[in-house]
Amino acid sequence: MTPVSFKVLIDALKALPGVGPRAAQRMAFELVQNKREAATILAEALTTALEKLRHCERCNTLSETPICSLCASPRRDATQLCVVETPSDQITLEQSGAFSGLYFVLMGRLSPLDGVGPNQIHLEKLVNRATDGTVKEVILATNFTNEGEVTAHVISELLETQGVKVSRLARGIPIGSELEYVDAATVAQAMRERR
Amino acid sequence: MTPVSFKVLIDALKALPGVGPRAAQRMAFELVQNKREAATILAEALTTALEKLRHCERCNTLSETPICSLCASPRRDATQLCVVETPSDQITLEQSGAFSGLYFVLMGRLSPLDGVGPNQIHLEKLVNRATDGTVKEVILATNFTNEGEVTAHVISELLETQGVKVSRLARGIPIGSELEYVDAATVAQAMRERR
Repeated sequence: MTPVSFKVLIDALKALPGVGPRAAQRMAFELVQNKREAATILAEALTTALEKLRHCERCNTLSETPICSLCASPRRDATQLCVVETPSDQITLEQSGAFSGLYFVLMGRLSPLDGVGPNQIHLEKLVNRATDGTVKEVILATNFTNEGEVTAHVISELLETQGVKVSRLARGIPIGSELEYVDAATVAQAMRERR
Repeated sequence: MTPVSFKVLIDALKALPGVGPRAAQRMAFELVQNKREAATILAEALTTALEKLRHCERCNTLSETPICSLCASPRRDATQLCVVETPSDQITLEQSGAFSGLYFVLMGRLSPLDGVGPNQIHLEKLVNRATDGTVKEVILATNFTNEGEVTAHVISELLETQGVKVSRLARGIPIGSELEYVDAATVAQAMRERR
């Protein structure tokens, strides 16, 4: 009953992270019925992004140029290297305004069950980068999930054998939160790491 | 810092219903980093859908042909016409297996504040369709939201002045639900309409 091109569009939308069958149906309808211009723009944006985006040769983040603008900036502190999982994490940190060094973007996290090992997250490139003589401290800002913690642990061991100073973002109670709504593990961690 | 083509892609994804800035960022990253093939397929699916999909001349639903396959089917009961808001609602009803008649798809609902009036949901076309001599009953299956109810009410008044028999999907407690988790308005309605 449903036209083929509509079905194909729904299936294509289902490939988006966090989009289930219902949401995909609704999106497909909206795009075709009320947002035809937005649909055209999206199709073009996808094609252009796939064509133009590569990885920065220094920090591995998405970039249209061989070296990304952040790595190329003379205003950043080249002695500090912050390791994040994704460009989104990098954006979040930049928005915090608390870091003025350079980044290394893993483009993932260790996840052996999904076939993501040290090569997929470019650990050799990271070690070379961290031991190039300018970097004085590597700050691990992988996520505080199981996989993120394991990734941080592995990187930390790798770098410490090379004599690189390694630190990790602080864990604790989020600013503005009420204790009773914070999960027990976080509270316990904050208690252990009190200062 | 973020490359232009990546920003443009994030903005284009934000146009999707239900997708906020965070989700758009995550989608853009996934598409460019891990799902390049899916991204290409999506771009093509959008272009093809925009190009091929038009509205069925009889029921107004999305169709690649002038008359959709459902309207063209000789196996459907042409005396019953079910009015729905969107093709998704039509799919849901078809999946229920409880209806074997034909449909009229409004492609929206009355919503004066958003500039959606009787013309935008093709009420004249609906009246012509419902009074063509074959239709014996019009079943209103617009959503049970405020806008859907208003739409059903307006259509019902329009058709009844033309002498068409009009019915509405039953309201009540969903199958399999526990009373304590059903909202009070639904329970009250189910009580009033008990049978």
